[in-house]
Amino acid sequence: MRNPNARSERRSGGVTLIHARYTVPVRPQGVVHENYCVAIEGDLILDVLPLADARRRWPDQEIISLPEHVLLPGLVNAHTHTPMTLLRGYADDMELPVWLKEHIWPAERKFVGPEFVADGTRLAVAEMIRSGTTCFNDMYFFPDATIDVCLETGMRASIGITIIEIETAWASDVDSYIEKGLRLQQQWKSQPLVSFTLSPHAPYTVSDETLSRVSHLSAEWGLPVHMHLLETEWEIKQSHQQHDLHPLNRLEQHGLLNSSLQAVHMTQLSSDDIARLAKSGVNVVHCPQSNLKLASGICPLTELWKAGINVALGTDGAAANNDLDLLAEAQTAGLLAKGISGDAKAVNANQVLDMMTINGARALGLGERTGSIEPGKQADLCALDLSAPETQPLHHVVSQLIYAASRRQFTDVWVAGKRLLDGGRLTTIDLDSVIRSARKWQSRLAGLEAETETEVKELAL
Amino acid sequence: MRNPNARSERRSGGVTLIHARYTVPVRPQGVVHENYCVAIEGDLILDVLPLADARRRWPDQEIISLPEHVLLPGLVNAHTHTPMTLLRGYADDMELPVWLKEHIWPAERKFVGPEFVADGTRLAVAEMIRSGTTCFNDMYFFPDATIDVCLETGMRASIGITIIEIETAWASDVDSYIEKGLRLQQQWKSQPLVSFTLSPHAPYTVSDETLSRVSHLSAEWGLPVHMHLLETEWEIKQSHQQHDLHPLNRLEQHGLLNSSLQAVHMTQLSSDDIARLAKSGVNVVHCPQSNLKLASGICPLTELWKAGINVALGTDGAAANNDLDLLAEAQTAGLLAKGISGDAKAVNANQVLDMMTINGARALGLGERTGSIEPGKQADLCALDLSAPETQPLHHVVSQLIYAASRRQFTDVWVAGKRLLDGGRLTTIDLDSVIRSARKWQSRLAGLEAETETEVKELAL
Repeated sequence: MRNPNARSERRSGGVTLIHARYTVPVRPQGVVHENYCVAIEGDLILDVLPLADARRRWPDQEIISLPEHVLLPGLVNAHTHTPMTLLRGYADDMELPVWLKEHIWPAERKFVGPEFVADGTRLAVAEMIRSGTTCFNDMYFFPDATIDVCLETGMRASIGITIIEIETAWASDVDSYIEKGLRLQQQWKSQPLVSFTLSPHAPYTVSDETLSRVSHLSAEWGLPVHMHLLETEWEIKQSHQQHDLHPLNRLEQHGLLNSSLQAVHMTQLSSDDIARLAKSGVNVVHCPQSNLKLASGICPLTELWKAGINVALGTDGAAANNDLDLLAEAQTAGLLAKGISGDAKAVNANQVLDMMTINGARALGLGERTGSIEPGKQADLCALDLSAPETQPLHHVVSQLIYAASRRQFTDVWVAGKRLLDGGRLTTIDLDSVIRSARKWQSRLAGLEAETETEVKELAL
Repeated sequence: MRNPNARSERRSGGVTLIHARYTVPVRPQGVVHENYCVAIEGDLILDVLPLADARRRWPDQEIISLPEHVLLPGLVNAHTHTPMTLLRGYADDMELPVWLKEHIWPAERKFVGPEFVADGTRLAVAEMIRSGTTCFNDMYFFPDATIDVCLETGMRASIGITIIEIETAWASDVDSYIEKGLRLQQQWKSQPLVSFTLSPHAPYTVSDETLSRVSHLSAEWGLPVHMHLLETEWEIKQSHQQHDLHPLNRLEQHGLLNSSLQAVHMTQLSSDDIARLAKSGVNVVHCPQSNLKLASGICPLTELWKAGINVALGTDGAAANNDLDLLAEAQTAGLLAKGISGDAKAVNANQVLDMMTINGARALGLGERTGSIEPGKQADLCALDLSAPETQPLHHVVSQLIYAASRRQFTDVWVAGKRLLDGGRLTTIDLDSVIRSARKWQSRLAGLEAETETEVKELAL
C-alpha cells in the first residue's frame, strides 16, 4: 500500500507513536480500533497496531497519549475560497446575485491583493486546523500567497489555477491566469504539501475556447479540473440562452466530463444527469450549508450515492457559509439527505465520515496520499476529545462523532507527520497576530461598505 | 415592564453589573448595544445602560467584564426529553418506528426510574448551560426527579405533566399521570424556576376522553398544553383510520387549538392548516434536526412566519438529535428555511435569534418573565466569546452569532441572576461526577442492547 508518489520528509527522532482510546481508520470502513497506536515515521504512517504490540516493537519510544479521544484521518475540505474568510458575515440574508454583485465583488475589486490573500488564508488555515481539517482545495486569486502560507504553517492544499474571463488584480486575461498558474505549478511540483487543479470558475464565466484549452491542459499536464457547476437554476437558463446547451452538454463537448472533474455544488440534477455523471466518473463536491444559505438548491446526495458517484464535501468560502467547519458541514449533509429523501436510513454515520475524509481525498486526486489511516499514506491525522458531556455516554463512537460532536473538541492535528495542533494550541500560527490582522481588514472593509452601495456594475460576459 | 408574576429571590450583595463589548437585548429587535452594562438585582434585570452611566450610578460597584463577548438573553429550548440524553447515539440511522419500538422503548422499559431521570437530567442540564440555554421544556417520566435537579443546579424549566395511555414505571394509567403531575404542580407552584405544562404525548397515544380532560384541566388550572403534533405522515393516516378525523380537527373538537397550545414538530401542514393555526394563536415548536434525522418531514418555517405564527425551537431529545445544542438548531432552522423556500431572504439572522429566545419564552407562557434583556425580567443571560478566529472579523455581530459561532464559545450563563457558568466552568454541577454516571449507564445499556433485539412488542392503542 506504500504510495510511490508520497515523498518522505524525515525528521530526526525516528518513529512517533500516538495512542488513542479509539482509532477510526476509515479504511477498512466501519472499523473502530480500541487502544491502538498509529506509528509515524517522518511524514508517513508506518503502522496501525495494538498498543501492546507497539510497546513491544518500540520499547524505548515515548508514546503520545490521547486517552479520551478518537483518532481519525484528517478532514478534507474539497471546496473553499480561503481568503474570503476576511469577508465572513460581511453580507448575509440576501440573494446570490445581489450578494455577489453588490457586496462581495466590490470588496474584492478594492482589496484583493497579496496582503489580503495571505492574511485571509492564515485566518482560514487557523480555523481549519482547529477544526480537524488537514487538506483543502482552494479557488482564488494570488495563489502564490496562499502557497506561502501553507508552507509557513505546514498545511496541505490543492491549489486552484483559477481561470475566469474577468480582469482582476491577479491577472488581466485568460492567458495570464493560465500562464501564472502553470508557472506556480512548475515552481512547486516537487513540494509534497501542495498539488494543483485547473479551476475554470463556472460555466457562465468561461468561454468555449477557454473550456477547450482547459480540457487540453488537463490531459497534457495530468491536472484535475475543479469547477462550480449546476449551482443554480439561473446558470442552466443562462447556458441555454448564451450557448444553446445545458452546461453538462457543453462540458461534454469539450471532453471535460470525466474522472478528473471535481464538480462543485451540483444542485440542479435530473436522474439522466446523475446516470451520465456516474458513467463518466465525475466527482461531486457537495456544499450543503452554502447551497441552503444562498437558496441555490439542494444537491441530491442520496441519489448520487446510489449511483456510485464519489461525493466529497466542501464548506465553500466563509463569506457564504459562514465558516470552514467541515464536521458541521458533514452533519448537515447527513441530516439533509435523510430529510430530503424521506428515508432515515438514506446515509449512515460511516458514509458521512467517508465523505469528509477519503472521498474528499479521492476527489482531489489525492486518494493514494491521504484520507485514511493506512500504512504508506501521509500522516494526516486529527484527534477529537470525546470526554465532553456533549458526547457522553459513548454508545457508538462514529455516531457521537457525526451526530453530536463539535469542532472545538478537536485537540490535536498532524499534517505530513508534523503536529500543527497540540492539545488545542496552534504550533505554527501566532493566533493573536492572525486576529489582529482580521481586525485591520474589518476596519478597512467597514469604510467600503457604505461607499459602494450605489456603485454596482453588472456582470456582462 | 416589571412583571408582577416574577418573584425576586434577592441575595446579599445588592446590584451585579455585567459589562459586555456587545449586548443584544433581542427586544427591541435588531439593536446591538456596544459597551453597555446589564445591572442585575437579585434575580431580576434592573437596567440596561451605557457603561459610563453605570459607573456613575454605582461608582463603588465592581463590574464583571466580558470584553470580547456578546451578551444575550439565555436561550430557550422549547422541546426536549432531558433524561434521554443517556440514550444519545444509542440507536441511529433507522426509521422512527424501528428506532422507537426496537431500541428506545425497550431501553426505557428496563431502566427508566428516578435514578435514570436524575442522572440523565443532570447530564442534559450540564450540556444546556454550557451551550447558553437557560430554560427548557421537558416531557418525560418522573418529573419530580427532573425538578430536583433543576433546583439543585439553578436551571429554569417548564415541566411537562406527561399524559400517555401506556403504563410506565412512573404511572399506571391516565388518572395516575394526571394526579401525580398536578400534585407536583401544586407542590412547586410558588417556586419561580419551575412552571408546568399539560403534556399529552401525541394524537396516537391519547384517547378522545383524555384530550377532553386535558382541555378542561388547561382552562381550569391555567396551564398551557404541550404536545407532539403532525410529526409524520403516518400520524395523520392513523388518525383518519382510528378517529375518522385529521389530528387538527380532533384537537379542535376538544377545544385545544388555541394560544395555550405548544404544537411540537408540525411537519405536515397544508396552507389551510397554517391559516387555521394563525387564527387560533397556536405556538409551533420547530425541531429541524430531529425531523431531518428521523426523516419525519420538514416544518414550513417561512410560511408559518409569514402567517404571523409564533415559532419557537426545540432540540428534541438527545436520542433523536443527538445533542441539546440550541444554537446549532437555530442555525439549521435558518439555513433550512432559506433552502427549502428557495429564498435567501426568507429569514434573517435577527429572526433566527428571536426564535431561540423570545419566541421560545412566549411559546412556553414565559414571555413576560424571560427571553429578552429588559428591566423587570428575570436575569437569564448568556455570553459568547467572539474573539475566536471562527467569528473574526466581526463585520456584523448577529450574523457571526447565527451563522458562524458554535456552542463552545459560550463562557458565562446566568439564570435568575445566579451565575451557573463562570468563564466556561459550571458552578453548580460536578462535571466529573456527571460523566462517571453517564458511563455507568453506558455499561448498563450495553448489556441490554443485544438482549432485547428479538423481544420487540408492537404498540397497540
